[in-house]
Amino acid sequence: RSLSTTARQSLRIGLIPADGIGKEVIPAARAAIEALGSDIPKPQFVDLVAGWETFTRTGVALPQDTVDVLRNECDCALFGSVSSPSRKVVGYSSPIVALRKELDLYANIRPVVSVSAEVGQKASVDLIVVRENTECLYVKQEQLTDGPNGKEARATRLITEHASRRIGQMAFKLANARPRKHLTIIHKSNVLSVTDGLFRETVRSVPTLPGVDGKYDGVTIAEQLVDSAVYRLFREPEIFDVMVAPNLYGDIISDAAAALVGSLGLIPSINAGDSFVMGEPVHGSAPDIEGKGIANPLASIRSAALMLRHLGYTKGADRLDTAVDQVIREGKTLTPDLKGTSTTTEVLEAVLKKI
Amino acid sequence: RSLSTTARQSLRIGLIPADGIGKEVIPAARAAIEALGSDIPKPQFVDLVAGWETFTRTGVALPQDTVDVLRNECDCALFGSVSSPSRKVVGYSSPIVALRKELDLYANIRPVVSVSAEVGQKASVDLIVVRENTECLYVKQEQLTDGPNGKEARATRLITEHASRRIGQMAFKLANARPRKHLTIIHKSNVLSVTDGLFRETVRSVPTLPGVDGKYDGVTIAEQLVDSAVYRLFREPEIFDVMVAPNLYGDIISDAAAALVGSLGLIPSINAGDSFVMGEPVHGSAPDIEGKGIANPLASIRSAALMLRHLGYTKGADRLDTAVDQVIREGKTLTPDLKGTSTTTEVLEAVLKKI
Ligand SMILES: CC(C)[C@H](C(=O)O)[C@@H](O)C(=O)O
Ligand SMILES: CC(C)[C@H](C(=O)O)[C@@H](O)C(=O)O
Repeated sequence: RSLSTTARQSLRIGLIPADGIGKEVIPAARAAIEALGSDIPKPQFVDLVAGWETFTRTGVALPQDTVDVLRNECDCALFGSVSSPSRKVVGYSSPIVALRKELDLYANIRPVVSVSAEVGQKASVDLIVVRENTECLYVKQEQLTDGPNGKEARATRLITEHASRRIGQMAFKLANARPRKHLTIIHKSNVLSVTDGLFRETVRSVPTLPGVDGKYDGVTIAEQLVDSAVYRLFREPEIFDVMVAPNLYGDIISDAAAALVGSLGLIPSINAGDSFVMGEPVHGSAPDIEGKGIANPLASIRSAALMLRHLGYTKGADRLDTAVDQVIREGKTLTPDLKGTSTTTEVLEAVLKKI
Repeated sequence: RSLSTTARQSLRIGLIPADGIGKEVIPAARAAIEALGSDIPKPQFVDLVAGWETFTRTGVALPQDTVDVLRNECDCALFGSVSSPSRKVVGYSSPIVALRKELDLYANIRPVVSVSAEVGQKASVDLIVVRENTECLYVKQEQLTDGPNGKEARATRLITEHASRRIGQMAFKLANARPRKHLTIIHKSNVLSVTDGLFRETVRSVPTLPGVDGKYDGVTIAEQLVDSAVYRLFREPEIFDVMVAPNLYGDIISDAAAALVGSLGLIPSINAGDSFVMGEPVHGSAPDIEGKGIANPLASIRSAALMLRHLGYTKGADRLDTAVDQVIREGKTLTPDLKGTSTTTEVLEAVLKKI
């Protein structure tokens, strides 16, 4: 299957709301997509389950059926958010981490952009975190042993040339398409000289790969140690344009960047592979506000936009993004995380009116 | 050797300025300590070398002599900062990471406190990061192999019950001594259920250890996933009091916290073990401003204060801290990182006048 959009009569979208506010924001994203009419092929939604609640009901966090349907019957998907047990539970393992691996969604792309007060004005924060999505400590190879002084636990952090190269290629491609064309490689090779050394060198070598042919000559390359990157994100976010990072650093850095623009409730992402893409709001399942109807749907709607853009439906994606920007700019209909008093439904309706 | 202060005629302090601005700020800390007069035993300073420059000169980043002198002839030490090579260099390995391990300085304690406008007023940020200092990915067990798709690098992340327990004890002790008595455990056990699971459970079990006897009953315990902790540090730092974290998360979180109070140039730390303590400013070697005479000496002076406090010299420590606070509050003599125009020497002199 390819991502080519030419022959599509309909767009089959898997919906996996999963836990907590995922069940409130994914339906909102669905409604926003439906409002796009003929700008995209007719959407067909497929409801799928995964998550902590699924686990407590069935003993499996990510049913094989969900993976199979996504793989064989869907063009793309939207994932909500998962809750985690507050203690280790035998047999439970994060379904989002597993899904990324099962579908080889190797790039987690997280644009963090503040909405400027006026249309056309420069955003104060405007960056993209490109997070490697399949390895690092997320390979979850862990062992527990008994040592002379008690228990000892070990986890493996895997960094491969293969995965670093493809995430590097994605990052260069994204950087090259932006006005500033600036790429910052995040690592900690002053401590992890072998693993992060491999990541850094492999990403750096992308412009010299066969077939690249000077395509990325305009991209400037910088590096930041992960600790320093978090510090500088807070102090001078304008130095960043595209940031590329191994999995765990990317996880942390995207949350740090999110804090700059007001709320995690605004930050979208896609998990992208060569033949599938899955939108996912960066926020969690937020058990504290679950069921109250006040979850911010904007990150999910923006994730739908990112997903459509990745599939080539630029016009539909633009309409969603513009509508979201207008609602934020007007500032009248916002959820409590943005200091508003509106509900999920009210925000969705404000967006639908703008579409 | 014990940390008991009773019989000390003199205080033997190893000085390892290492690289970059370390060579400018450690002498300032020395001068501040010398100004304390009879509040502390007569200080005897021992000049020692380590770092990238030492490596380029001698081929060794941490000479055995430096370790031996610290171990056998010093009561405590001050470490500056190290530069890292911009590419992997065979044989080079961070001397600060090695020193922490060699001297078993298992707790890296990093208080991040904003100076209130008025004396006695509540600080807007007032927290302590307690970072495990000997294991996690910092064990630096890395391998490079050839796989079917190119190179593969693996690093081991080690978390032991032993190290988690002693850092947990340190964190509970520090939390218990503070007015809020609130401890937040930082982890990522939704992904690393075995390693971070062990860290979390072991820290949680500290109050039930034999001999603790209800001592920590007043301490409230919370948890935050590391990504979320960074986000919340920016959004609502007031929710944190003492944070305890495995090594790498602690590294990142202390930089995030530092960003809240204006400059890394203000943040001190100690590397503490059961029989040795080493002060260390959290900032790096700052090659961009090296040799310009404008490095902020306040983090190093505060690190000296923390070190003295840890050794039991409360009066000397208080005098240093109060002097630093006064200089910051007055706002007249500050280095460029704090938007001032003063030099390292001018700031030092302002501090010396207040001591
Ligand atoms: C839920 C968790 C496993 C996940 C991650 O760490 O990747 C989340 O924090 C994210 O950023 O999508
Ligand atoms: C220089 C580096 C090895 C060190 C670390 O990561 O511990 C530094 O960032 C710190 O925080 O002291």
